[in-house]
Amino acid sequence: MNNTIFDFIGGTTGDWKIIKSTTLIGESLPKVTHVDKIQSSLINRFEGIWSLKGVISNLRYTEKAEKDKLTAKQEDLGRKKATYAAFIPIRKNEAWWNLAQDERRQIMEKQSRHTHHGMQYLPAIARQLFHSRDIDEPFDFLTWFEFAPEDEPAFNELLSKLRQSEEWEFVDREIDIRMVRV
Amino acid sequence: MNNTIFDFIGGTTGDWKIIKSTTLIGESLPKVTHVDKIQSSLINRFEGIWSLKGVISNLRYTEKAEKDKLTAKQEDLGRKKATYAAFIPIRKNEAWWNLAQDERRQIMEKQSRHTHHGMQYLPAIARQLFHSRDIDEPFDFLTWFEFAPEDEPAFNELLSKLRQSEEWEFVDREIDIRMVRV
Repeated sequence: MNNTIFDFIGGTTGDWKIIKSTTLIGESLPKVTHVDKIQSSLINRFEGIWSLKGVISNLRYTEKAEKDKLTAKQEDLGRKKATYAAFIPIRKNEAWWNLAQDERRQIMEKQSRHTHHGMQYLPAIARQLFHSRDIDEPFDFLTWFEFAPEDEPAFNELLSKLRQSEEWEFVDREIDIRMVRV
Repeated sequence: MNNTIFDFIGGTTGDWKIIKSTTLIGESLPKVTHVDKIQSSLINRFEGIWSLKGVISNLRYTEKAEKDKLTAKQEDLGRKKATYAAFIPIRKNEAWWNLAQDERRQIMEKQSRHTHHGMQYLPAIARQLFHSRDIDEPFDFLTWFEFAPEDEPAFNELLSKLRQSEEWEFVDREIDIRMVRV
């Protein structure tokens, strides 16, 4: 057991009940009613109907000034009032991964303003990024967001901005799963 | 089996026979006579006397201009004349990992000139970086170098430059294992 490796298990029971699931691009996941998010290890658990694994890692693009602002403004997962969650697994194409670090940063921030947009919705939207690309998983990232029901429109606005960005032209698989805490 | 995940197995048999092993900082590894480098998976193999796992990933710091120069100059592992190899597992401390991306890049390149120094020894020194930090391993990186016996002094010179750099002040475990192809 490790405190940076998590399994997201889709099945018929779990802490989060699915309200809506939308496949935006690429292959869907099998239909399930619940998602569980649990601390795990690199070993496959073969639970549920599908299971996705992700690892909390160091910051890959965030610069010092942004990191300080984020740290000051963001809140942790698990807030009592944040009864809504979104689980959005994402894969980017080979063209993205073949770019050098400065090219990816340029697209993410200078052009697409990913961190800038995200910052506008703090502290209402709490989020955590999990990396999956290097551990032989079908997605590159698993993103998890938690917010109060009244902040759902703001969250949708944030997603809309990101999905219109140049960065999102590199996304070739994305599923948006919305849940309520059981 | 996956073509980006590798196991480095220290034991009493293997493709590479150890000539010399030096622990520069931090805990040593148990003494072995040979190292095998094999394509693997995330599953632990429990072979040999020690076993270290690493993943080939995307470039994390290299910028476009550097990438183009590296691609033009570097050679692959497995050259017939490159009968010498070095396996150098490295761990960096928490202070390093808590830095933002631009701070780490600043130290690596602007101050320590990591890529610049490495470039001077291409194509003689072929190398591959394997990431271990996010997969619950004792080291953060496993580095593997191959060169002809006559290029060993040049390789030692490169290591000496890197080990004197500011970047290396963050290294808290490093073992330098030199080998000859069996």
